[in-house]
Amino acid sequence: MLIDGREADAVAADDRGLLYGDGLFETIAVRDGRPCLWNAHLSRLSRGADRLGIPRPDPRGLRVEAKRLLAGVAQGVLRITLTRGRGPRGYRAPDAPVPTRILACHPGPDDDRRGADPRDGAAITLCRTPLGENPRLAGIKHLNRLEQVLARSEWTDPELLEGLMLDGHGRVVCGTMSNLFLVLDDALVTPPVHRCGVAGTVRGLMLEHAAAEGIGVRVGDVSVSDLFRARGLLLTNTLLGARVVARLGDRRYDPQAAPRPLIERVRAAAFRPERPW
Amino acid sequence: MLIDGREADAVAADDRGLLYGDGLFETIAVRDGRPCLWNAHLSRLSRGADRLGIPRPDPRGLRVEAKRLLAGVAQGVLRITLTRGRGPRGYRAPDAPVPTRILACHPGPDDDRRGADPRDGAAITLCRTPLGENPRLAGIKHLNRLEQVLARSEWTDPELLEGLMLDGHGRVVCGTMSNLFLVLDDALVTPPVHRCGVAGTVRGLMLEHAAAEGIGVRVGDVSVSDLFRARGLLLTNTLLGARVVARLGDRRYDPQAAPRPLIERVRAAAFRPERPW
Repeated sequence: MLIDGREADAVAADDRGLLYGDGLFETIAVRDGRPCLWNAHLSRLSRGADRLGIPRPDPRGLRVEAKRLLAGVAQGVLRITLTRGRGPRGYRAPDAPVPTRILACHPGPDDDRRGADPRDGAAITLCRTPLGENPRLAGIKHLNRLEQVLARSEWTDPELLEGLMLDGHGRVVCGTMSNLFLVLDDALVTPPVHRCGVAGTVRGLMLEHAAAEGIGVRVGDVSVSDLFRARGLLLTNTLLGARVVARLGDRRYDPQAAPRPLIERVRAAAFRPERPW
Repeated sequence: MLIDGREADAVAADDRGLLYGDGLFETIAVRDGRPCLWNAHLSRLSRGADRLGIPRPDPRGLRVEAKRLLAGVAQGVLRITLTRGRGPRGYRAPDAPVPTRILACHPGPDDDRRGADPRDGAAITLCRTPLGENPRLAGIKHLNRLEQVLARSEWTDPELLEGLMLDGHGRVVCGTMSNLFLVLDDALVTPPVHRCGVAGTVRGLMLEHAAAEGIGVRVGDVSVSDLFRARGLLLTNTLLGARVVARLGDRRYDPQAAPRPLIERVRAAAFRPERPW
């Protein structure tokens, strides 16, 4: 682990990341010793920093540190955490914050089954823990993740890969750790992320590739009945790539409903190690 | 600072408090070398732990540690942080979490002007940052506080003590660091905290004392127009006690509108050091 560029494993107890969840993070797949979608992750991290009023990280410095940390690592998961840094007690942020950056390399991504054959559809569930709506925090990957922690605690069945979450108005938004696409009336639909949810990097790839290939895709509100009406469901995240859903509760989906070539291309793009690195 | 009972100033970088804001905290006024409202704070901490599925802290152990930390401290602010402890990457909580407890003593509470004459009404503002609604997280004092951090960043005028926050439906809920009471139609009204907001310890005292003294008090939804219609406003928190509002934007309030004897009794109760200690 590298903390502010030094090998370390502890953070000051008055870091605002710990005091208030005052910061951001990125989870990045590492393949062939290189991070995947590096630029997309750095770009979201910068957008999040702007939103929270945290000084942007220096992308070149982060790259140098990531290279150092990943030396000798063929496959794994890189987590970058950026907090507002240390500060006195109280919500008021320091006038000149000195952000803390933490780069940690984890094994994986076995838990996320990235290596699984994508043709094996996943079994998922519906969570009761709702997502609070807050446009000021929506879309970015900030450290306030209790909703996801509580939702994830709703199931222990190891067969279940993911749980879908609704907002306070009953709209389906995303999974605890993934974005959702529905195959609905022969188009792809994904919920908006301007009220809650995270603008996933692979969600972005899906939208881009689908549009480029002339596959109908739209961002729109999704109800629970839409989930059951849909011919197919897809989950996307940086470790899963794009994964077909085989079952939500008792509802089974045709794994062929989602456009295969699109999924394969998005997976390839999501898992392509960054070059040059 | 005491971390898990040992003098330390750093926390493991894989603590879930830092990774996900997965934990709770309490801010406690210290007077005459003793914490105020100790039992109320410990009780909220335990309720929060139950809600998040974190093992409850041992109140006796916390008391021993607080005594150690406060030895020689006449006045200050004690912050207790309880996280779910260390864990692997991913939202899924460890099956047998070992919580981290951090006791820190801060100077203060100058910033919160606890020492100010309560007859000097405070100037406050209205924040644009909304509060997301989530009944699973409402009422408890968890570590996901980005909404408060963003709201607090909306003003720099040192004359402004506090900013009020609305939920996504435009209902007034609380201040960034305090609960709100309105003097409305000769009764006290305070917003509910089951959708968002924190069930403040001094809010509890106000409800209790008002009811005991036969002063009309109710928990009910508050609109922005109610704020302007109210004869008086009051803020409560553990460091302010109960504080009258003199001004919200251009609207000025009669500092005599709120029932003085009640305020004085609540302040006395809020600032009474714990005995025996």
